[in-house]
Amino acid sequence: MDYIKVFAPATVANVACGFDIFGFAVDNPGDIVEIKRKPEPGIEIEAIYGDEGRLPLDAGRNAVTVVMLHLLGHLGISDFGASVILHKNMPLGSGMGSSAASSVAGVVALNEMLGRPLSRKELLPFAMQGELMAAGAAHADNVGPSLLGGFLVIRSYKPLDVFNIAVPAELYCTLVHPDVEVNTKDARLILRNEVSLKNAITQMGNVAGLISGLMTGDYGLISRSMVDVIIEPVRAILIPEFNEVKQAAMESGALGCSISGAGPSMFALARTRAEAEGIGEAMKSTFAAAGISSNVFVSGINSEGPRILAAD
Amino acid sequence: MDYIKVFAPATVANVACGFDIFGFAVDNPGDIVEIKRKPEPGIEIEAIYGDEGRLPLDAGRNAVTVVMLHLLGHLGISDFGASVILHKNMPLGSGMGSSAASSVAGVVALNEMLGRPLSRKELLPFAMQGELMAAGAAHADNVGPSLLGGFLVIRSYKPLDVFNIAVPAELYCTLVHPDVEVNTKDARLILRNEVSLKNAITQMGNVAGLISGLMTGDYGLISRSMVDVIIEPVRAILIPEFNEVKQAAMESGALGCSISGAGPSMFALARTRAEAEGIGEAMKSTFAAAGISSNVFVSGINSEGPRILAAD
Repeated sequence: MDYIKVFAPATVANVACGFDIFGFAVDNPGDIVEIKRKPEPGIEIEAIYGDEGRLPLDAGRNAVTVVMLHLLGHLGISDFGASVILHKNMPLGSGMGSSAASSVAGVVALNEMLGRPLSRKELLPFAMQGELMAAGAAHADNVGPSLLGGFLVIRSYKPLDVFNIAVPAELYCTLVHPDVEVNTKDARLILRNEVSLKNAITQMGNVAGLISGLMTGDYGLISRSMVDVIIEPVRAILIPEFNEVKQAAMESGALGCSISGAGPSMFALARTRAEAEGIGEAMKSTFAAAGISSNVFVSGINSEGPRILAAD
Repeated sequence: MDYIKVFAPATVANVACGFDIFGFAVDNPGDIVEIKRKPEPGIEIEAIYGDEGRLPLDAGRNAVTVVMLHLLGHLGISDFGASVILHKNMPLGSGMGSSAASSVAGVVALNEMLGRPLSRKELLPFAMQGELMAAGAAHADNVGPSLLGGFLVIRSYKPLDVFNIAVPAELYCTLVHPDVEVNTKDARLILRNEVSLKNAITQMGNVAGLISGLMTGDYGLISRSMVDVIIEPVRAILIPEFNEVKQAAMESGALGCSISGAGPSMFALARTRAEAEGIGEAMKSTFAAAGISSNVFVSGINSEGPRILAAD
C-alpha cells in the first residue's frame, strides 16, 4: 500500500457526569489524514489544511506524526518513509477532541499501511501519546471513543481498562461550537483538587444512572442522570451564555446538555434527529442573541470509529 | 385479615465502590415480623426475640413499629389495633441491614393486612423512617434492596430515585459476620468530608464498571471494578483482621470482597455457590485464627425481597 486516507471522528468527553471516564464519538465532524509512502526513510508533514497555520509542521512536535513515530518505534521499523497531509475539519481547542481525531486518524492510517500489525484497541496507548503532546496529559476520553467508536468508559488508566456501553440506536447528539476559545490546560487548572464526599456520592449515582439508562434505553433515567455537580459548575463560567444556551436546549426537549470536553463546545443528547436539529437551532440562536457565532453539528453516536476513505 | 407473618431479607449496602448508592438483598438471613389484629386501637410490641433484650418495646421508639405508625398516619387510619412480634435473626449493628430488615418486614406486613393500599416502591419512604429512628439518618441503601429485592441503585435522595440492575443469575454472595461490634454512627463519623478529585474519578470509573459488568455478566469487569478507594481504606481499620480476611477471600476465588454496609460484616461475591461456600470457610478460619468467632451466610442475590410466610 502506497497511499491511504483515513477519517477519525470528533468526540464528546465527560458527557455531563463522567469527568475523565466517559466519551463518545460522533459521525461529524472529524479530521482526515492522508499518508503517501516515499522511498527515503522518515516522516514529514507535507501540508496541514484548516488550522489557520497554527499547528507545527515539524513531525516531532505535531500529534498526528508523533503517534506514528511512537508506533514505528514500538514495531522496530526504521526504514519507513512517508509524507503526511492533515485536514483539520474542526477548530483547535474546541472541546470536540480535535487533537485526538488527528492522532487517531494518523495512527490508524499508519497501522493499516503497515498491514495492520496491531488491533484498534492495541493502538490506544499510541494515540494517547498524541494527547500528551497536544494537551499536556495522556488522556483517553477523546482518543478512546474516536479510535474505538461508540460510547466508551475509561475505568482505569493504570492499568488501562476501557469498555464500550451499548446505547439506543436512535440517540442523537447536537454539538455546538461557539466562536470563543478555552485552553484545555486552563480549563483543567481551575478545577479544585478536592470534592465534597456529598458531591462525589451524587456524581456516582448519576454515573450509575447514565450507564444503566443508556444500556436499557431508559430515556427518563438518562435525562435525570445527565447532571454534573463537580466540573460543570466550575467550567461553565469560562463559556459565555452557558446557562442561557443550556436552558434553550432543555426547553427544546434535550435529554441533557453540558460542556463537551473542556469546552467551549456544548453538547446535548436527544431522542430523534429532528429533536436534535431543533435543539441545535435553539442553542445557535441563543449564542447569536449575545453576538456569538457558532457552528452546529447533528449526528448519531458513531459506533464505527475511524473510517478508511481511500487506499491504493 | 387478622394475622400476617412476613420475612424481609438482610442486605449488603455500598458493595465496594458504591458508597450510599448501591445495595443488594440476600436470601438468608432476614428478620420476621408477625402482626396480630386486636380490637382496641393502637400498636403495641408483644415480644422481640433474638435481640438479647436490647431493642425498646415502646412502639414509638422501635423502628419496626415506627414505620407502621407513619404508614397509618399517611393513610389517615386512627382506629387500627394490632400487637407485633419481631424475630431478629441477625445481630444489631452487624452491617447486614438489621434494622432495615425489621422496618421493611413491618411496613410490608401492615400494608398487606390493610389490603395493599400502597405499592412496594411507594412504601420506601416509610421504611426509611425506620432507618432514621435506628441509625440516625434516613438512608435507603439497606431498606431499598430489602424492600424491592435484587441489586438496587439509589441515584438520588432529593427527589428519591431508585432503580434495579439486572445481575447474573448464578452470582452468589458470602456474608461473614465476625463477633465484634461497630456502631454505624461511629463508622460514619470517621469518614472525611472531602475526597480527592483523583479518587472520586477512580471511584466513578469503578461504579460504571460494576454496573456494566453486572448487566452484561462480565465477571472480569465486575472483579476489577469491586475496588473502593474512598471508604474501605478508612473503615477497614475498625474491623480486626480485615486485610487478612479479604486476602483469604480473594485467594479462594472471590470476584471481590469488601465491608458490608458500615461493618463489621464483610461480604464477597462469587461465580457459583460452591465457590461462595469455599470463600466463606476461608474467611471464617482466618477470623478464627485471630480468636474471633464468626457466622457465615451463603446465598444468591434475592430478587424477590420480602416474602409473606403466613396470612389468615
